[in-house]
Amino acid sequence: MLLIDCPDEKGLLHKISGVLYKNDLNVISNGEFVEKNFSHFFMRTEFSGAFDRDQLLDELYTALPKGVNIRLMERKKKDIIIMATKEHHCLSDILIRHAFAELNANILCVISNYTFLQDMTERFRIPFYHVDAENKTREEHEEEVLAIIKRYNPEFLILAKYMRILTPNFVAQFPNKIINIHHSFLPAFVGANPYNQAYQRGVKIIGATAHFVNDNLDEGPIIAQNVITVDHTQNAKEMAQEGRDVEKIVLAKSLRLVLNDHVFVFKNKTFIF
Amino acid sequence: MLLIDCPDEKGLLHKISGVLYKNDLNVISNGEFVEKNFSHFFMRTEFSGAFDRDQLLDELYTALPKGVNIRLMERKKKDIIIMATKEHHCLSDILIRHAFAELNANILCVISNYTFLQDMTERFRIPFYHVDAENKTREEHEEEVLAIIKRYNPEFLILAKYMRILTPNFVAQFPNKIINIHHSFLPAFVGANPYNQAYQRGVKIIGATAHFVNDNLDEGPIIAQNVITVDHTQNAKEMAQEGRDVEKIVLAKSLRLVLNDHVFVFKNKTFIF
Amino acid sequence: MLLIDCPDEKGLLHKISGVLYKNDLNVISNGEFVEKNFSHFFMRTEFSGAFDRDQLLDELYTALPKGVNIRLMERKKKDIIIMATKEHHCLSDILIRHAFAELNANILCVISNYTFLQDMTERFRIPFYHVDAENKTREEHEEEVLAIIKRYNPEFLILAKYMRILTPNFVAQFPNKIINIHHSFLPAFVGANPYNQAYQRGVKIIGATAHFVNDNLDEGPIIAQNVITVDHTQNAKEMAQEGRDVEKIVLAKSLRLVLNDHVFVFKNKTFIF
Amino acid sequence: MLLIDCPDEKGLLHKISGVLYKNDLNVISNGEFVEKNFSHFFMRTEFSGAFDRDQLLDELYTALPKGVNIRLMERKKKDIIIMATKEHHCLSDILIRHAFAELNANILCVISNYTFLQDMTERFRIPFYHVDAENKTREEHEEEVLAIIKRYNPEFLILAKYMRILTPNFVAQFPNKIINIHHSFLPAFVGANPYNQAYQRGVKIIGATAHFVNDNLDEGPIIAQNVITVDHTQNAKEMAQEGRDVEKIVLAKSLRLVLNDHVFVFKNKTFIF
Repeated sequence: MLLIDCPDEKGLLHKISGVLYKNDLNVISNGEFVEKNFSHFFMRTEFSGAFDRDQLLDELYTALPKGVNIRLMERKKKDIIIMATKEHHCLSDILIRHAFAELNANILCVISNYTFLQDMTERFRIPFYHVDAENKTREEHEEEVLAIIKRYNPEFLILAKYMRILTPNFVAQFPNKIINIHHSFLPAFVGANPYNQAYQRGVKIIGATAHFVNDNLDEGPIIAQNVITVDHTQNAKEMAQEGRDVEKIVLAKSLRLVLNDHVFVFKNKTFIF
Repeated sequence: MLLIDCPDEKGLLHKISGVLYKNDLNVISNGEFVEKNFSHFFMRTEFSGAFDRDQLLDELYTALPKGVNIRLMERKKKDIIIMATKEHHCLSDILIRHAFAELNANILCVISNYTFLQDMTERFRIPFYHVDAENKTREEHEEEVLAIIKRYNPEFLILAKYMRILTPNFVAQFPNKIINIHHSFLPAFVGANPYNQAYQRGVKIIGATAHFVNDNLDEGPIIAQNVITVDHTQNAKEMAQEGRDVEKIVLAKSLRLVLNDHVFVFKNKTFIF
Repeated sequence: MLLIDCPDEKGLLHKISGVLYKNDLNVISNGEFVEKNFSHFFMRTEFSGAFDRDQLLDELYTALPKGVNIRLMERKKKDIIIMATKEHHCLSDILIRHAFAELNANILCVISNYTFLQDMTERFRIPFYHVDAENKTREEHEEEVLAIIKRYNPEFLILAKYMRILTPNFVAQFPNKIINIHHSFLPAFVGANPYNQAYQRGVKIIGATAHFVNDNLDEGPIIAQNVITVDHTQNAKEMAQEGRDVEKIVLAKSLRLVLNDHVFVFKNKTFIF
Repeated sequence: MLLIDCPDEKGLLHKISGVLYKNDLNVISNGEFVEKNFSHFFMRTEFSGAFDRDQLLDELYTALPKGVNIRLMERKKKDIIIMATKEHHCLSDILIRHAFAELNANILCVISNYTFLQDMTERFRIPFYHVDAENKTREEHEEEVLAIIKRYNPEFLILAKYMRILTPNFVAQFPNKIINIHHSFLPAFVGANPYNQAYQRGVKIIGATAHFVNDNLDEGPIIAQNVITVDHTQNAKEMAQEGRDVEKIVLAKSLRLVLNDHVFVFKNKTFIF
């Protein structure tokens, strides 16, 4: 799997496919797209055949303009850490998929500010860390969380209904590496209690949004969204109940996309091939 | 068709069904719901059989508590006026449905601040009024529009992509009688250019919302919503293009619900049976 | 919760609501529907208040015509048994919901013709019975399964991807008590390997169907269905993978409907309120 | 727009992009896919720049293996003929889109076996041919239809709810050139009266399918599908009513895909880029 993005210019496709052809590699599927506003080129190529990794990268960097981003992915599982609070449905769903090898990831550990999910996590033989947030500043709490994370050195942090707001300082250490599931169809109902907001507003459809986290809460690049219909017979609590099934499926979809290298991030948007 | 709502108390269902039974009417379908926050009772009953309208209403008012709202609907078409600007798709769709008697309504006329849609409207033999907004205050323009509306005395005003903001004074004259189609999944992207906002935000789903219009722009009771998926290959203009199909279908659905008496409005929400 | 169905006649709603009113019970929500082809009356009523169960039933049977079906449900969990084969996703999803008390049911045990799912089941402290089907006639195998089922006396049997066909004799012992998840949008692709059939046919949407099981395979009353879009890049195996998420959500929805008494079965169809 | 398909071999992408690069053309978007069962290569490329059509084709044919299919599309409207019977909704929707230049097509004429849709068609100033089928063999009727079609020489025939079955002989004259909208979610409910079949079966979702027509009725390559939810309150007629909105949107989508050259047909399936 090869993911390349760079400022657009003529002949990029030809140059890249030339390097692959020269190395006797067969392109199975190829998606390419030029973002017109910024004239930026994206390409994701799946190919088969044996190759020398360093040499292939070398040839690609030589052939392509300066400033190119090249990701030559190996088919190995990504290391991830999951952060959660009290709600179990997203964490449970990920643990189950992991247990049956359906997730392209190793779950290194689960970190939570409560102990509610400890039993479930440990049933799946995954280390669970309880980092209590009581009587601590946000910074002190994050220090403790960071100490654990650094010990494990994960490639992605998954916020599976982690209900604490992260500081910009924390977020800045994991650019495009933190995935959050927000329980609304963003940008509708940013912030707290979206189901209650949805109920008050009387919407007929609710949704969930998986996105990368950046400085501004709920405003990072969106990876996946989905919705379900609701009606006047459902109160906020019942909407939340129904909404959980969407949340866990949307988060799972975003993990499938990210962990299998389908996603580019550029200018606060995702480009998915 | 009988629609009743009032503050809840015990025995309402029994009292109403008693009046129907005494009049030898057969209930075909019945939906009832009590909104718990405000303890408000809603009931929509479809029944068959012959009856004296005044007498039935009399008996119902006698049986039920003061403050009850009773709508005993006849199966007659509602009179409506459509207001539009330049975009044709919602107007065209309504005109077609009307031409083939699929709409429970008589279209009295179409009013627009441009002449773009005159030819299409007149092809369907519906009167078209061009009320130019150039060099007029908002109030002056609305005065002219109101003069036409009052001549026709419609039961509903349909804003089929009418792109001018109505004054509170105008809106106040038609409480829960103005239906608007907003080209976004409200409350996401209120205000102008929602497709451009959606494109900038990089959402993966866009939608449309049909709602009653009240004082606050885009904040009236929502009647119907629907969505479609979009991706990074679509720019704002292409999203708008795809979005039009959702807009016309959502507006048509809201008209089917409202014109066939399926909708209660209560506390800025709709209750649909 | 009160569910009543019987041949339609005038005054049923009034008579039922009369019994409730007389017993000082408050109707919170009421759905009623008359199926016109067979002139059959259905009503589901949610009410609050204290009552004597036997007396209320007595009064209802006295007030209503002979042949009426009355279900006066208590808010107690239903006893269920889950049958599965090798695929875990539906079973896992049910076990998780059960573990967090989100299912209105007690899982008495899991029965499987393989041992693949034993570890997962026992992690949730649910008894697991392996009933091997090797070197046995279909009838012999079912005898063993039945022996276990009878010991537990469940109210519903859930086929969570149980991949063996049940004999009419087996099915006849549990009329409208067996719920199956079929991995296609029935009636498209009945029978074996629906994802492969879908792939061969080149469909753009695939789905899943939860239904009661009766004599004719895949032809029992449908409870819930849902779909997802697919495209030419997915082979049968990848469609199956994506389809699993729909299967588990559709089965969960059908369980929510059935276990919370929302479902009538009549003439091979469900009527859901 | 360039569409190429041929048996797969190494270097195809490189060779094609080489020809484009040599001609100083800039690739804007490129989709490529290898169907693995048949080892067949598909590629759709959107590029910008000026070129000599004959020379470019020449270079491509020289560079690529024998048996390649190359379509170098010009951005000109396709000529189409619409065939319909009595139902208006698909025809109306196409006429409207055509009237506002939203369809990449010229409608040459409309042919129908009834006169119901004549008035609507002529309102849009499109020639309408009534070819009565009374007292004629299927072959005689088709002869008359063919005579009209041949006079116009269209690139595509659109069956917009044309309710007569075409003979294999007729179909064979327009391979992958006839597009039909079937009013069910194929392959569920092939043949006549699908809404009645759906009602009898008690499905919870109904749909529509746009497909190319080949010898076997309702079995040609599927282009687009969509669905809506239904419930027990709707009879077959009401399902049909709701279904019409899906039919017209699905047909419109298939036209957008086909008329804008997004579709390959291969082995009774479509590959859409």
